[in-house]
Amino acid sequence: MTLSSNAGIAVRSAAAAVPLTDDQRLDWLRLIRSDNVGPRTFRTLVKHYGGARAALSALPDLARRGGATRPVRVPSRQDAERELTAARSLGVTLVALGELDYPQRLAMIDDAPPLLAVRGNAAALSLPMVAIVGARNASAAGIRFAERLARDLGAAGFAIVSGLARGIDGAAHRASLATGTIAALAGGHDQIYPPEHAALAEAILAQGALISEMPMGWEPRARDFPRRNRLISGLAAGVVIVEAARRSGSLITARMALEQGREVFAVPGSPLDPRAEGTNDLIKQGATLVTQADDVTIVLRPILSDILGQPIELAAEEPEPLAPLNPEPAGSDRERIAGLLGPTPASIDDLVRLSGCTPAVVRVILLELELAGRLERHGGAQVSLGWDRDR
Amino acid sequence: MTLSSNAGIAVRSAAAAVPLTDDQRLDWLRLIRSDNVGPRTFRTLVKHYGGARAALSALPDLARRGGATRPVRVPSRQDAERELTAARSLGVTLVALGELDYPQRLAMIDDAPPLLAVRGNAAALSLPMVAIVGARNASAAGIRFAERLARDLGAAGFAIVSGLARGIDGAAHRASLATGTIAALAGGHDQIYPPEHAALAEAILAQGALISEMPMGWEPRARDFPRRNRLISGLAAGVVIVEAARRSGSLITARMALEQGREVFAVPGSPLDPRAEGTNDLIKQGATLVTQADDVTIVLRPILSDILGQPIELAAEEPEPLAPLNPEPAGSDRERIAGLLGPTPASIDDLVRLSGCTPAVVRVILLELELAGRLERHGGAQVSLGWDRDR
Repeated sequence: MTLSSNAGIAVRSAAAAVPLTDDQRLDWLRLIRSDNVGPRTFRTLVKHYGGARAALSALPDLARRGGATRPVRVPSRQDAERELTAARSLGVTLVALGELDYPQRLAMIDDAPPLLAVRGNAAALSLPMVAIVGARNASAAGIRFAERLARDLGAAGFAIVSGLARGIDGAAHRASLATGTIAALAGGHDQIYPPEHAALAEAILAQGALISEMPMGWEPRARDFPRRNRLISGLAAGVVIVEAARRSGSLITARMALEQGREVFAVPGSPLDPRAEGTNDLIKQGATLVTQADDVTIVLRPILSDILGQPIELAAEEPEPLAPLNPEPAGSDRERIAGLLGPTPASIDDLVRLSGCTPAVVRVILLELELAGRLERHGGAQVSLGWDRDR
Repeated sequence: MTLSSNAGIAVRSAAAAVPLTDDQRLDWLRLIRSDNVGPRTFRTLVKHYGGARAALSALPDLARRGGATRPVRVPSRQDAERELTAARSLGVTLVALGELDYPQRLAMIDDAPPLLAVRGNAAALSLPMVAIVGARNASAAGIRFAERLARDLGAAGFAIVSGLARGIDGAAHRASLATGTIAALAGGHDQIYPPEHAALAEAILAQGALISEMPMGWEPRARDFPRRNRLISGLAAGVVIVEAARRSGSLITARMALEQGREVFAVPGSPLDPRAEGTNDLIKQGATLVTQADDVTIVLRPILSDILGQPIELAAEEPEPLAPLNPEPAGSDRERIAGLLGPTPASIDDLVRLSGCTPAVVRVILLELELAGRLERHGGAQVSLGWDRDR
């Protein structure tokens, strides 16, 4: 990382002072849009190769060594330019992790999107944020409460984050249009879902913003929503669940919030109301019970100041490459690791212990398998051998 | 205390093996029905004088020294016999604190009634108990939930305690008629309130019981209900509040439960439902959230076994009198204490410190003032000077 000339500035400010060049942004975009490259793999690759450009060169070979049966798809520079142009034409900016406009709290989650597509009033992303999410088939009372809470938290200076869904999400956005609200999309910016919320999405842009990590044109599939939910909780200092049945999507957001160290709040309801089962359960498990905005602000205000002192792990791209991927694993190491892996998740620690390989070698082999589309990562540093869905 | 011949029996069993004689029961009844004698004063008097008979003799003089302007009313032996006969004719038994049939947990509260008037199936009073209380103007959902909870806790082996009120209380009793339910009355046994619950009260008698500390013929006044609430919480290992607005009577029961070291449970509800404001507040303050019977039993089961090892402070009356009230305060001590007291509550510790009297002397003087109807006791060992309402 090139330090800013003012050596007294904190790490974050220094990083923030170095935006990506246009070329680097294209490289980042190509890398994150490549087959089997998610935010975590992106981070590992950039760290190992010293930059996205070098990682892009190494990618095909890594995947081949990992057992890929056909070449991984890496978008061309022209593909990336087309996406940037399409984004720009809709008023969408691609903000890189480490840049000044990147939402500060989101930058701290493990799997923060390297590039965040932002449309609207980016200033909203620098407000303290609280997420309000809940049932799509919300009750009239749930809708009314979500509106009241969003309005009061908006008046208290918070931007309201939600998922633009029907029900609670929509109510939370609508009630905070004037104070600033952020909708995290599961698809591309030109694929607003549900379609009847297109006007709401437009209305958000004046004081708030829409964000997405997906490419333009991406129509959201069912499995994109849980993935999107980590952005909702990741942006916010806390997440309020207003109505949620058992095993509902809002509870996924609550779980992600906990994993990310965010505060979880839940609105109680009658034990006879199925839409309160999830929220009552959350309270039993320790979530803060919410009946008014104060219940949220009392918990969050002391936390908001904490963020300033925190360093960001991945700052804007470092121009000088680090040492090349090292050590180079031997073929026998690869066989040993692949032999230890199966469909049941195993801990990376166990792989190191049982294979006799160094942690660095194990990490490289897992990266190769991942890029070949053969590895699945689970929580708690567990991995299993999967199969490329496209085979 | 006369120890039972079987010296191996625990203190409680020994005490329980010594029921009051008929004469003693009459003395106890006369003492507790005397002017300005509540359960705490009763306990102090019996402790100081070694028995109710001696306390009855000392009473007029104590009250006079405390500044009573006219003689305190002490029921005659005939009055007490009339009450016993009236009780018996309705099938009501007067159980004394320390006797085998006295509810074990209730015996442990500071202000346990010395005599508890019990009607119905006394066996229900030896079951583990949980109280279910709540709003009189309950919602249909609240009623339904109270019924379900009472039925499930009844099936789990608990007797259900409540206050025979309209709404939640009535629902809790009705749903536990078959398994055993206890109604704590605010008036006498022949003054069922509300009158439309007379049939419910009768139905309770088969498997459960009605209890009261008030005399036969006593029509409950507004201020008798909070006083009665301490019996509801005192009988039970835990109290479940089903629906309660802010500042409602059920919250008094919850507060008393906390003071008595009972578990407090609350049923959540929508923040937009005024009947859930009290219960949601309780959960915010640490009450256990309840959506099903298991939430209660998981907390209470480990507690239920604790009670067996506990000694009871006041066992059945001790036949040999203790030393007479000692030390005798000087007139100047009385003036000094009375001078320090006013309408604002003061701590007894402060009275001792500021008066220079010994704690024993202060205790005696406060007892005199209390019997004269001039002292009011507050929580946290605070007292203030009041005025006899009858003056």
